[in-house]
Amino acid sequence: MDSAALLDLLGNENRRRILRLLARKPCYVTEISDYLGVSPKAVIDHLRKLEEAGLVESRVDDHRRKYFSIARNLRLEVNVSPYQFGTKSAYPASPSLDMTGCRYLSLHVEQGDPEPAGEDVEDLTAELERLEGLENELSMAQRWVQGRLTDVMDRLSARFGENGRFYAEVLSALANGAQTTNRVARKVDAAPDVVEEVLTSLAESGLVERDGSRWQLTTRG
Amino acid sequence: MDSAALLDLLGNENRRRILRLLARKPCYVTEISDYLGVSPKAVIDHLRKLEEAGLVESRVDDHRRKYFSIARNLRLEVNVSPYQFGTKSAYPASPSLDMTGCRYLSLHVEQGDPEPAGEDVEDLTAELERLEGLENELSMAQRWVQGRLTDVMDRLSARFGENGRFYAEVLSALANGAQTTNRVARKVDAAPDVVEEVLTSLAESGLVERDGSRWQLTTRG
Repeated sequence: MDSAALLDLLGNENRRRILRLLARKPCYVTEISDYLGVSPKAVIDHLRKLEEAGLVESRVDDHRRKYFSIARNLRLEVNVSPYQFGTKSAYPASPSLDMTGCRYLSLHVEQGDPEPAGEDVEDLTAELERLEGLENELSMAQRWVQGRLTDVMDRLSARFGENGRFYAEVLSALANGAQTTNRVARKVDAAPDVVEEVLTSLAESGLVERDGSRWQLTTRG
Repeated sequence: MDSAALLDLLGNENRRRILRLLARKPCYVTEISDYLGVSPKAVIDHLRKLEEAGLVESRVDDHRRKYFSIARNLRLEVNVSPYQFGTKSAYPASPSLDMTGCRYLSLHVEQGDPEPAGEDVEDLTAELERLEGLENELSMAQRWVQGRLTDVMDRLSARFGENGRFYAEVLSALANGAQTTNRVARKVDAAPDVVEEVLTSLAESGLVERDGSRWQLTTRG
């Protein structure tokens, strides 16, 4: 689901409380309504929105009572900086995804086959601890990267003078994987002809290279 | 600022559009109003909320016109899973933060003194590219960790039987750094005496250890 729809859903305190409750255990409407102190009608309305978005699902138990639970894993990241308002949402990657091919980071937890030798509780607990530790370090690393990125963007802006901010953003879009003029234009939210002009001027300074319809940062020899 | 207040602010499409616009350049109220097709009155109201939260700031220029810009870096992460609805918001870490002490990951970008030798545009562009690459890999790593965590929690739940889910969450809270009964209780959103009972039972199985009023996962010899 897209980040905008997710932010609209999460922008409501009662929907957040419902998700927090369902993350603890599957619940019936009346349980949620009692816990939240909100009318069943309002709860049903929130659940319908969450269900339509695929965040929540319902099942009917042996006593024909309908109970709700969280349907899927989802992750949302929002970055706000003087150069960026970026949102990213994604489903968790498969545990068997190969992370060893990363260029800029290595993880010091066992990878590859996620199936441990046994289902020993002590092994699982130890793995839980490593994963929680890794998660905290990854969060810290992302905050560190965001700080450095803003720092580099400040310096680039200063170097290009009057339109420095815009030049820096075009470079950032290229660095982040945009290759065609149109994609860069969409990332920096500007008209393609304006972006084309900036890219041409950056190419004249030798900072970017054109290869047919694709642009890339010049790699230094 | 706390995650709930941030999610309330970001849950509005027009406020997101204002932030996206301001991330491109500082703007006057009338510019924002024209761009968004929203009345100046509504824009002023959104800006006031964003300013009160410290996300946006205003300055008066030489022509006594007030313009608005993004005030600060901020990062928000939301995890939704059958075991968790977690939100975390934080300011970016200082670029000079030492990341070499991490236990579970290493970053393959130059660290330490963030001041490059010169202010050479090519150096800055190359650094920009590395940082954007690292940021993407960190996001992928976090999605991978979230997938593995859910996997481990599923297995732990299955191992503990009927109340497995709750036992797994108590272990997860300990693994994530909670040490006292009260802190664990707050994390899993349950009564302290219930949590104390679970911790005592886990201690009897040798999975956790008590040291005075603190609990921790048993480290294996």
